[in-house]
This record gives sequence, C-alpha cells and structure tokens, in this order.
Amino acid sequence: MNHEFSTVGQRVRDDDRRHVFHSWSAQGHIDPIPVAGASGSWFWDYDDNQYLDFSSQLVNQNLGHSHPRLVRALQEQAEQLAYIAPSFAAEPRSTAARMIAERAPTGLDQVFFTNGGADANEHAVRMARLYTGRHKVLSTYRSYHGATTGAVTLTGDPRRWSNEPGMPGVVHFFGPYLYRSAFGADNETDECRLALQHLEQVITLEGSDTVAAVLLESVVGTNGVLVPPEGYLAGVRELCDRYGIALICDEVMVGFGRLGHWFACDAWSVTPDLITFAKGVNSGYVPLGGVVIARDIADHFAARPFPGGLTYSGHPLACAVAVEHIKVIEDEQLLPRVRSLGTRLHAELTALAERHPSVGEIRGMGLMWALELVRDRESREPMVPFNATGEANQPMATITASCRDRGVWPFQHFNRLHICPPLNISDEELSHGLAAYDEALKVADEYVA
Amino acid sequence: MNHEFSTVGQRVRDDDRRHVFHSWSAQGHIDPIPVAGASGSWFWDYDDNQYLDFSSQLVNQNLGHSHPRLVRALQEQAEQLAYIAPSFAAEPRSTAARMIAERAPTGLDQVFFTNGGADANEHAVRMARLYTGRHKVLSTYRSYHGATTGAVTLTGDPRRWSNEPGMPGVVHFFGPYLYRSAFGADNETDECRLALQHLEQVITLEGSDTVAAVLLESVVGTNGVLVPPEGYLAGVRELCDRYGIALICDEVMVGFGRLGHWFACDAWSVTPDLITFAKGVNSGYVPLGGVVIARDIADHFAARPFPGGLTYSGHPLACAVAVEHIKVIEDEQLLPRVRSLGTRLHAELTALAERHPSVGEIRGMGLMWALELVRDRESREPMVPFNATGEANQPMATITASCRDRGVWPFQHFNRLHICPPLNISDEELSHGLAAYDEALKVADEYVA
Ligand SMILES: Cc1ncc(COP(=O)(O)O)c(C=O)c1O
Ligand SMILES: Cc1ncc(COP(=O)(O)O)c(C=O)c1O
Repeated sequence: MNHEFSTVGQRVRDDDRRHVFHSWSAQGHIDPIPVAGASGSWFWDYDDNQYLDFSSQLVNQNLGHSHPRLVRALQEQAEQLAYIAPSFAAEPRSTAARMIAERAPTGLDQVFFTNGGADANEHAVRMARLYTGRHKVLSTYRSYHGATTGAVTLTGDPRRWSNEPGMPGVVHFFGPYLYRSAFGADNETDECRLALQHLEQVITLEGSDTVAAVLLESVVGTNGVLVPPEGYLAGVRELCDRYGIALICDEVMVGFGRLGHWFACDAWSVTPDLITFAKGVNSGYVPLGGVVIARDIADHFAARPFPGGLTYSGHPLACAVAVEHIKVIEDEQLLPRVRSLGTRLHAELTALAERHPSVGEIRGMGLMWALELVRDRESREPMVPFNATGEANQPMATITASCRDRGVWPFQHFNRLHICPPLNISDEELSHGLAAYDEALKVADEYVA
Repeated sequence: MNHEFSTVGQRVRDDDRRHVFHSWSAQGHIDPIPVAGASGSWFWDYDDNQYLDFSSQLVNQNLGHSHPRLVRALQEQAEQLAYIAPSFAAEPRSTAARMIAERAPTGLDQVFFTNGGADANEHAVRMARLYTGRHKVLSTYRSYHGATTGAVTLTGDPRRWSNEPGMPGVVHFFGPYLYRSAFGADNETDECRLALQHLEQVITLEGSDTVAAVLLESVVGTNGVLVPPEGYLAGVRELCDRYGIALICDEVMVGFGRLGHWFACDAWSVTPDLITFAKGVNSGYVPLGGVVIARDIADHFAARPFPGGLTYSGHPLACAVAVEHIKVIEDEQLLPRVRSLGTRLHAELTALAERHPSVGEIRGMGLMWALELVRDRESREPMVPFNATGEANQPMATITASCRDRGVWPFQHFNRLHICPPLNISDEELSHGLAAYDEALKVADEYVA
C-alpha cells in the first residue's frame, strides 16, 4: 500500500464527512469509501481494494468506467463547446436527438432532454396532462421514478412516504408480480389477465376521462426486476388506447441496452406515447436524461408553448457522450451480446438457485437479474422484512458484506441481490462475480429456517 | 463565409427541427440558431455572425465560454474518474463541498449536490419541511424557482400557470418592488417596512406554526433584477427567527460572483438556513446545482435518513469544474472586479436612462442590471403588457432584434432588457455592448407616447 496515496484517501474521507451531505442516508451512520479510480467493470479505493462492479454503480454505467472512446468524445466536445443554452441548436444536441429518435419505436421521433431521470418523468407527465387535458396519473406500487415532488409522488416505494403529501392526482395500482401476486394468481397467464383487469377497474373507478397517463417501468428495476408477463405491456397499451390515456414507459434504468434492446418495450413490440430515459444513455459521464415523444404529442405543442424547461436541457457535453455511447454499443455489438449473456445468466442462476435454499426466485433478462432471498421457500418469507433497516436488515447486510469482502460490489435492495454489471463485462469477469455471489449465498443459506 | 461550414450548420438546424423538443416554446414557432463555437464572452454561428453574450447564456456562464482552465480541469477529471455513485466519497466532490462551505456564510457547512436549480430548491424545501415538522412554504410573486412540480409551484411567474394544481402548501406573497409597489409606497424605507409587515401578516394568517420555510431569490433575477431595499433581508431573517421558520435563499442566478460576492446574501450580511445554487457555480460546463445547509439542519439528519437523492448527486466531473471555477474567480480577482464594474454600470446606465425616455428605471448591482422600458415615464405603462406574446410583444421583439443585429445578445424578459455578461468581460467588450443597447433604446424611444 502506498502511504501517500492513502493519505489522499484520508483527506477525501475527512472532507466528505465534514462537508458532503449524502442522498437517502442518515448522515451520522455512513462512512463512504473514497474511490481513487475506476476502469471498465472495476473500481478501487485508496487502500488497494478493488471491486468488480456488479451494480454498474446505480445501474447507470452501461459501458462501465473510463471507457476510452467516451472519455475522448467528452474531451473533444469540451474543446469545442461545453455548454450552450437550450434555445440554440448545437451539433451534439441535434445528433443525439436524431440518433435516439432513429432507435426509438416508430412514431416517437422528438427528444426533450433533461438532466436526469426524475425531471424526465416530471416533464413527460406534464406533456401527457396538457396533451390529454386530463389530470390524474396512474403509476405502480413497487416502482421508483425519482425524487422531485412529482416523481417521488409517482414512486411506489417507501421513498415516497416521508415526502407526502405530494403532487395531487396520483393513484397507485398493482403491476404483475407472480411470486407475490396481488391477485392470488399461481401462473403467469392468470397474473397477466388479473393485473390487466385490476388496471381497468382502477381506470374505471378513478374515472377514465380524468386519467392523463399510465406511467410504469417497462421492467421494474430497483423494486425487484419484475419482468412483465407476455401480453401485459400490450394489454396496458390496449387499455390506454381504449380510454384515450397516454402510456409513459419509464426506461431510465432499462433503456439503452440493459435488456439487450435499445428500449425495453422493444422486447414486447409495444409502442408507448412517451419514453423517459437517463442513466444508461451515456453511462453518467455527464448528467443526462430525457423524454422521447410521439409525433402527435409533440405536434400538440407546435402552436402552443410547452411550459417546461431547464437551464441545462440538451447539454452539448452530455449529448456528445450519448452520441459516442450509442456508436460504441453498435460497434462492439453489445445488444446481441447482452441478450446472449442473459441466456447464460438464466442458466447459471437457475443452477445457483438449485444449490441454495435461500434463493426463492430468480428473475431477469439481459443484464438485469434479481435473486429474491427467503427464509423459507414454502412460505416465501422474505430474508428481511419489507423496507427493513438496522437490526432487522442484518442478514442482508451480512450477505452483501460477504460479496464485498470477495471484491464484488453487489446491488442490494430489500431481500434481493441484483446482478447488473456493465454491458461490456467479459465472460471471465461475469464468472468471477457469480462465484462471489455463490459464496455469499452460503451465508444466506444459514438464515434459512 | 465557408460553404462547407455552413452546410454543417444546415444539418444541425435540420436535425434540430426534426428531433429536438425545446423548452418553453411553441415548437412550430422557433428557428434555433445553430451555434458553431464560443469563446470568452462571444459565441458565433455557422454563417459568420458573432455575438457578444450580454446574457451569459441563461445567466449561468459566469466565466464565459471555453475558459481554458475549466476545459483543462474537465479533461483531466475525465481521465481520472468521470462518475461515481453518490454513496462513495470522491476527491472533486469532497473538495468542491469544502470549498463552497468555506465561502458560505458561517454556520452553513454542508453541501448537498443536485443536477440543477430546480432540484436544488426541491431538496431544500424537503429539508426545511422535515426539519421544522411543518408543511407550508411561502415564496414570492415575480420569482422563478425551476420547472419540476415543487419548484414550479413555488415559482411566482406565469410559468407556473399551466402547471397547476401543483404541490400543496405553497403560498405566494409580495416582495419589495418600489417601482411598481404592491403597497403604494413611494420610497425605499416605506417599501421595506410595508413589505415586511405584509409578510408578517401572511405568516400570521397562514398560521405561523404551519410555515416550514420562506423561499426567496436574494435578488430576484429573471423577474426583474429586484434588489431588496436595505434592511429587507435582515427583516425577513428576523421574522423567520421569531416564528421558527427556515429561510431559504435561492441564489441559483445570483450566487458565485454575479453580484460581486460569493453569495448574494453576503451583501447584506444575512445568514439563511439554506442556500440553493446552480448556474454560476461552474458556468454550466457540466450540469450542477446544490444546497448549502446550516449545521443544525444537517444534524437533524444525523440519525434519521434524509429522504431525497439523485443518481448524479455530487458528480465528479461537475464538481471538478466547480473547484477550478472558484479558483479562477479568486486568481483573477473577479469579486472586486465585479463590484467595480457594478459601479461603472450604475453610472453609465444612469446616463443612458437620461438620454432615453423609454427607460423607466434602471436597477441592479454587480453584473446584473435591468432597464425597465415604458411607454410613458409618468404613468409607467410598461413597453409591453405583462406576459405579452406575439403581436402584443412586438415592441420588445423589435428592440432585442436591434441588439442582435448589432452583434450583441441581450437578455430580455417582459418589458425589460437585462445586462448580465460573464464576470470576466473586458472593459472594451462592456463598452461595445452598452453602445448596442444605446442604439436599441433609440428604437425603444420610438414607442414612447
Ligand atoms: C426507473 C427509474 N426512474 C427514475 C429514476 C430517477 O433518476 P434520477 O436519479 O436520475 O433522478 C431512477 C433512478 O434510480 C430509476 O431507476
Ligand atoms: C433563481 C432561479 N432559481 C432556479 C432556477 C432553475 O434552475 P434550473 O433551470 O437549473 O432548474 C433558475 C433558472 O433560471 C433561476 O433563475
């Protein structure tokens, strides 16, 4: 260990504890690891600890850390023009919008750029409300949509609770989740049918003429990697059409290759009216998010002003990275690669689940998978209670610590471990990470009744 | 004119019109100028038109375009570590937080980073609500706080209207604005006294125990460069103390040197509980905003989790630019420079106003000034009606076009021209811009009754 190096680390840590206020945390209970550097699927601290990033940070670094082509694109754009106001046209902004539109479902051909995922959802909802002339927005329980007032109200997980009352007009409904069905179903077909019937009842009882939008994560990310059953998204699309409701797919976590498609909804050939994105669009090298907009909604604002915006909309540096990001995904043929890694993961995780009684279910596609951990496979009692913290969360804390001790940085949420590494992870790296999860599951198995 | 160059410009424009959805606009009524490059206080298009940026884009490029030190800092950080999740510590994040805290009013020593101004205000309000255990937030008419649901509800200008109903619990009050006093005052002392009395009445009638925060722009920016009279901010501070209310100063536009101080509230030696910033913190080279937090509010979240956050909080690249930005402002001694340019502008604009009957009032400090244009100095009838568009706004459109024709890019809002160039503008450039405004005011004078 290099002493000078670790002195820098100490200073970074000290300044952090004195001056940085952290997201979603009790400030006195955290001790953030100072990160010294990162490359590809790895990052390391100032004390020679290396971690394989099985979480792509916040499931946003689809091309991993320090990708040389992204760094170069960023550096070159910085020479040219780092920033220009949204009211101008700029080369990277125009090109990013065109390239995103070209890869979006047919009919969605305009892009409104934001800084991140929360404001993407805020602006998509605004568009839907003004377009339909209606007010209510339906979104699912077990979802995350961001932390600004509108986005956090739309969120269907506990992060909403301390932020209530929020934006008026939001109603939560249940999406399909067979393993813990809200409808008592015991097979995918019933779960799908009953979930659609439930949504239609909610629409009817809320008053279909009052509903501007249905907002959902095409595949629910943080709240469980809930892959919709075949027919569900198409069924929601059909309900939206029937009742004149805009369908907004939040693809902040699942867009731009995470599931082996440019957009997750492509996997089911469903065309939403609005798609929100962020994270994977440029691996977070520069903050970026946005909304891909159906032509008829964009046209609604042809003659009347759209009442939304932000200082950094269409940020040239962020857009330049997005442009190169799309090219890298294509040049490195990552979409088919992710689909085939999805097949590999399905097989290996199935085997893992067989070996470990703590694994209640595995779910996922592409490079986003969840292992749902239980105390008991029969009762499906979760490894830790819903929204557990402190003592109650100890088992999951121990399990994730075991991954970290093996140099693998897991994504953990509630009673689940997720696997969501960069899309360009190598076969060997994936094996390395899975081996660490395998070991960690031995720890998990000890909690099984 | 270089033909090839202008072909690129045409492609940028075409892609923009086909695929970029613009902020705050009727998409069919705009024709965005493609910007080819920019340097210092200048930017240019693909057709050899150069503009002196008297608006610092959206009053956010405090150090202008393509500053070599900022570009280098950005490029170097990109090599090191472009992004790491908010839960880690990172050198630029720690350093930026420390340097901002060191320059903030005593007692405010923690920083929560966001992407921009809107989410800074959203998170500040969240902190104030949870800290006080109260719900209502009072903000001023004639203000702008951002476009997400909470921020736009807090906004006191027409951008709020099409976004209502918004967040519950927001009440608007009148700030001081002597030229069009809400209180019938005819001098600053009365305006100040009556504005404070008005605020106290609103607090009382809303129920002081229900009020979590008073949020105001320390100096109102877009909505008029409304410099508070001596004693006003101190009076608001005193009311907040008396009623246990958190004072949030929105310094998104006026922080980081715009007025010749790190923070605008320094000019009146007033210490808010929370200061929100964005824009000028790093000239927008990478999106960044944040909240500077008083120790007791930060401590409130020592043992209980703060329920807010975002993927890009404390973005390393954005923070690295902020660090260098602060150093440049110090190395180039820009704070005293801005104060002295403020003195120069006061003198020159006073002379300008004497020459031009269309100028009803000049207001400002540092490098943020407004010329309020009127049809008639006696009646103070504004040059165009409040929130005018289209035909009704023709006089202002003609006046700003006249500036642009002279190669000066003005900031215009309602019946006002603002002057807010980069802080490192040269004396000669400032003279050049003022000469163009002088000519444009001749056009304005023609509309005077
Ligand atoms: C599905 C989804 N939507 C929205 C967001 C919010 O994005 P941001 O953190 O950029 O505001 C997230 C972030 O985790 C997300 O996963
Ligand atoms: C005073 C003030 N607050 C907040 C904002 C919103 O900032 P942003 O556009 O980064 O969301 C602005 C933007 O103009 C502003 O001037």
